[in-house]
Amino acid sequence: MERIMLAHGSGGRLSHELIRNLFQKYLGNSYLDQMNDAALLPGLEKIAVTTDSFVVSPLFFRGGNIGKLAVCGTVNDLAVSGAIPKFLTLALIIEEGFPMDELERIIKSVAETAAEAGVVIAGGDTKVVERGSADKIFINTTGIGYITDRSVGPDRIQPGDEILITGTIGDHGIAILSEREGLEFQTPVLSDCAPLNNLIDTFYLPGVKCMRDPTRGGVATTLNELAQQAGVSLLLNEEQLPLSPSVEGACGMLGLDPLYLANEGKALVIAAPDAADQVLLNMRAHPLGRKAARIGQVQEGKPGLVLLETFLGGKRILGMLEGEHLPRIC
Amino acid sequence: MERIMLAHGSGGRLSHELIRNLFQKYLGNSYLDQMNDAALLPGLEKIAVTTDSFVVSPLFFRGGNIGKLAVCGTVNDLAVSGAIPKFLTLALIIEEGFPMDELERIIKSVAETAAEAGVVIAGGDTKVVERGSADKIFINTTGIGYITDRSVGPDRIQPGDEILITGTIGDHGIAILSEREGLEFQTPVLSDCAPLNNLIDTFYLPGVKCMRDPTRGGVATTLNELAQQAGVSLLLNEEQLPLSPSVEGACGMLGLDPLYLANEGKALVIAAPDAADQVLLNMRAHPLGRKAARIGQVQEGKPGLVLLETFLGGKRILGMLEGEHLPRIC
Repeated sequence: MERIMLAHGSGGRLSHELIRNLFQKYLGNSYLDQMNDAALLPGLEKIAVTTDSFVVSPLFFRGGNIGKLAVCGTVNDLAVSGAIPKFLTLALIIEEGFPMDELERIIKSVAETAAEAGVVIAGGDTKVVERGSADKIFINTTGIGYITDRSVGPDRIQPGDEILITGTIGDHGIAILSEREGLEFQTPVLSDCAPLNNLIDTFYLPGVKCMRDPTRGGVATTLNELAQQAGVSLLLNEEQLPLSPSVEGACGMLGLDPLYLANEGKALVIAAPDAADQVLLNMRAHPLGRKAARIGQVQEGKPGLVLLETFLGGKRILGMLEGEHLPRIC
Repeated sequence: MERIMLAHGSGGRLSHELIRNLFQKYLGNSYLDQMNDAALLPGLEKIAVTTDSFVVSPLFFRGGNIGKLAVCGTVNDLAVSGAIPKFLTLALIIEEGFPMDELERIIKSVAETAAEAGVVIAGGDTKVVERGSADKIFINTTGIGYITDRSVGPDRIQPGDEILITGTIGDHGIAILSEREGLEFQTPVLSDCAPLNNLIDTFYLPGVKCMRDPTRGGVATTLNELAQQAGVSLLLNEEQLPLSPSVEGACGMLGLDPLYLANEGKALVIAAPDAADQVLLNMRAHPLGRKAARIGQVQEGKPGLVLLETFLGGKRILGMLEGEHLPRIC
């Protein structure tokens, strides 16, 4: 009997197979088939909607907690889709016996992060299950945004376009891992967990062709999705990848590739060559974009192929995340 | 240290206290403070949104399963709010090791029920947690609907209005309980789990002033909410309550009050006296409303008071559900 495995929730290959073989099979429609981070819905005033459940463990970590994460994750899915995030719903599944003060800290954090992002919690739900039937608390947020005239999507990507990222990679993944394993670094690694909509408002120009937030599965998996959807090849330059020294050290020590680690406050941006310089300047002018960098290029070539030009000058293929290294990263 | 208890998720008194003391305190805004089943959101084309997580146990029961329930629950919250349900998002939290064939049955059921209700699943998310960190599967659905000119809400309720219900009460609660306890009745009790939007389209008239679906906490708890929000007294007549013989028998045997049992396919309707007869006729013309009945009246008197006139002619106060008799009923 086939069974659900942790990797089905990883955002990697098995997740994609599950979507194709089960969800698209039964539920496929023109909205779901867009396969973007948010669904754009018709109406006289167009709206965008996206949903995400958060099961991160531990609940509290350096740089954030499950409440902050639940707001950022959904706000960011709307923002990278070119929408202006406006409303969130918040649904909690709580284990019997969960401490009220921890719940209060989480809800406060939801409120603060929603205020920072300028979104309104427009609805909610709470379920409590018996002790042992859920691990502490799970949170679903669903977001609704207004559609702007920002036309972004993988269909606009062309050879010659530049690949930019708004800052260092792998911080969230290492922050969670170090909490779990009790690892101490000289400079502690903080999760990058942040709402990106204000940053995006700052750097956006019509030359921006596509945006994604590289969460579960990391930069490598997100770029694989884009390369497939756009039918292009992507070439990344390892030397240009922004990495904090602590994340670089942790990855070296633990044998992890930062390209597969989750980020919760970074946008990958594909920009036209004549716009890329200005977009990069705009990014760096915002506190969340100071470490923004150009990290690669869109190329002709085998559709769906993502290549990494390494420090040594060689090239290797970057596939999607296989299996699940870090369950419950978000 | 104060801790979350099962009753915090019951829909009863402690749920209301949690909402007031925690969620409204930190997250209160004009949308959440409406305290209706769905939030009505501004925009050139007005939309409604509602969210609900489903943790029902067992997952499969006579008359439905968690997938069907997750669609009905959210569709019904939109429909009783006077909106036309249009879009749903679907977010799954699945325990590692969950059988794929059961997941497939659930997703099929989601698709079938969404088709029956005429709603489109517009987004989704899947998380998997380690074995033991969740009990099999939890489902969140968030729904978006279009606002109609149906003006319904507790503020329209006036003394003299009639209280109607679209059919028998307590069926879902008894169906779940009998699955859990292995009870057999001569005529098995099926959950009433059904999307109500088509039924509501059939019976709605401008004389309909308010609609609610009496789920967790049952008819008694829902009527308490309405009586408080509208600042009126409500008088129910026990003799007029539609009950299936099996539910009546089960309640007698188990010492349960059907007024506190969950329903998942019933609407409570407050209608103006001159519209009530026609609304009732319209209800009975639809397959889901054949057992519709007039069950009470809105009265002057102590705001928030709900009274039951018993078979014996006496009157007793019906309070909100206290504690939690049946956790994970939805």
